[in-house]
Amino acid sequence: MDDDDFRRGQQTCHKAFDEATAILTGDALLTLAFEILAKEIDEPTVALKLVRELAEAAGPTGMIAGQMADIKTTLNNTQATKKDLQTIHINKTAQMFRCAALMGAVCGGAKKSLLDRLSEYGLKIGLGFQIADDILDVCASSEQLGKTAGKDAKADKCTYPAIVGIEKSKQLAKQLADEAVALLEPFGRKADILRQLAVALLERTK
Amino acid sequence: MDDDDFRRGQQTCHKAFDEATAILTGDALLTLAFEILAKEIDEPTVALKLVRELAEAAGPTGMIAGQMADIKTTLNNTQATKKDLQTIHINKTAQMFRCAALMGAVCGGAKKSLLDRLSEYGLKIGLGFQIADDILDVCASSEQLGKTAGKDAKADKCTYPAIVGIEKSKQLAKQLADEAVALLEPFGRKADILRQLAVALLERTK
Repeated sequence: MDDDDFRRGQQTCHKAFDEATAILTGDALLTLAFEILAKEIDEPTVALKLVRELAEAAGPTGMIAGQMADIKTTLNNTQATKKDLQTIHINKTAQMFRCAALMGAVCGGAKKSLLDRLSEYGLKIGLGFQIADDILDVCASSEQLGKTAGKDAKADKCTYPAIVGIEKSKQLAKQLADEAVALLEPFGRKADILRQLAVALLERTK
Repeated sequence: MDDDDFRRGQQTCHKAFDEATAILTGDALLTLAFEILAKEIDEPTVALKLVRELAEAAGPTGMIAGQMADIKTTLNNTQATKKDLQTIHINKTAQMFRCAALMGAVCGGAKKSLLDRLSEYGLKIGLGFQIADDILDVCASSEQLGKTAGKDAKADKCTYPAIVGIEKSKQLAKQLADEAVALLEPFGRKADILRQLAVALLERTK
């Protein structure tokens, strides 16, 4: 929906092929995700829980709600508040991080109190990831990013740096990563990779 | 992906709103379909079978394969053979008819031999529906159709009338409806609504 020609240093699908192919590829991957869950998970009640979680995160209550709110704000050229922006980022990005964090734990049969912690962990690193993305768009070069830098500001997109400033944005991202790591306390060493992930997402330069 | 402004006499979503909203609406409805199956069907193994059937019909092995093949043929301005066209129509349209016919029967616990018949029934009325659609595009007025008539021919889209002619197309559609109705024989009176549907799809004027 936006005008990037590159992601991770590669041409985007709609540039390398065309718009129709890119849209169908997205639909194909979305549908394939549900197909894999329904075919590859042995325990039917677990598979169904994963289908529900993914549908809620990716669908009209999650990512699509966030994307619509984002488009609406941009189209109307409305200055979003910090609260609006948080809602957009949570729905558009963080719900999918939450879902990813949960799904493995659901497969592993984790109890509810641990699922709740991973759910919170996912939301926090998802929001932190998006704030870090907003900051990178302002601070990094296009070469570093592998996509066009400065395009959010140019497109008058509402971003954390635009609303609260760069320094406050960096503090917020750091705080979210710290809170995410704190939530992992009961998991001990087993959650080390999730701790590393929280820090890596914050410290990434591209 | 095509340029109709109207469907069933109403403005299409991408005209009434915009392209981005139309794409997101499609994604939302697709995701919602999986969510409903995962939440509303009591028996987990039945719900999972429905998720699998829908994913296969709507995804890269079904509707998306058909849509991609259709786009490719149109873009390359290739004259499709009757066999190409049948593959496109089966994947793009008939797989979803097949899926719809099957899903009710799966919920009702039908045995395999009956599921196979409904599966064939769905493919036949789906293909017949699409041939009838091609014929209507040539023969009906835009007012009757509720969408722009003649646009397939104008867009050099490969259609049954373009490849085998109008009369042969009508014969094929009739034959498919007859075969579909014959498949319903073991269901007796219970399948009357499916018989009526096969005929109605063939005889529709819009």
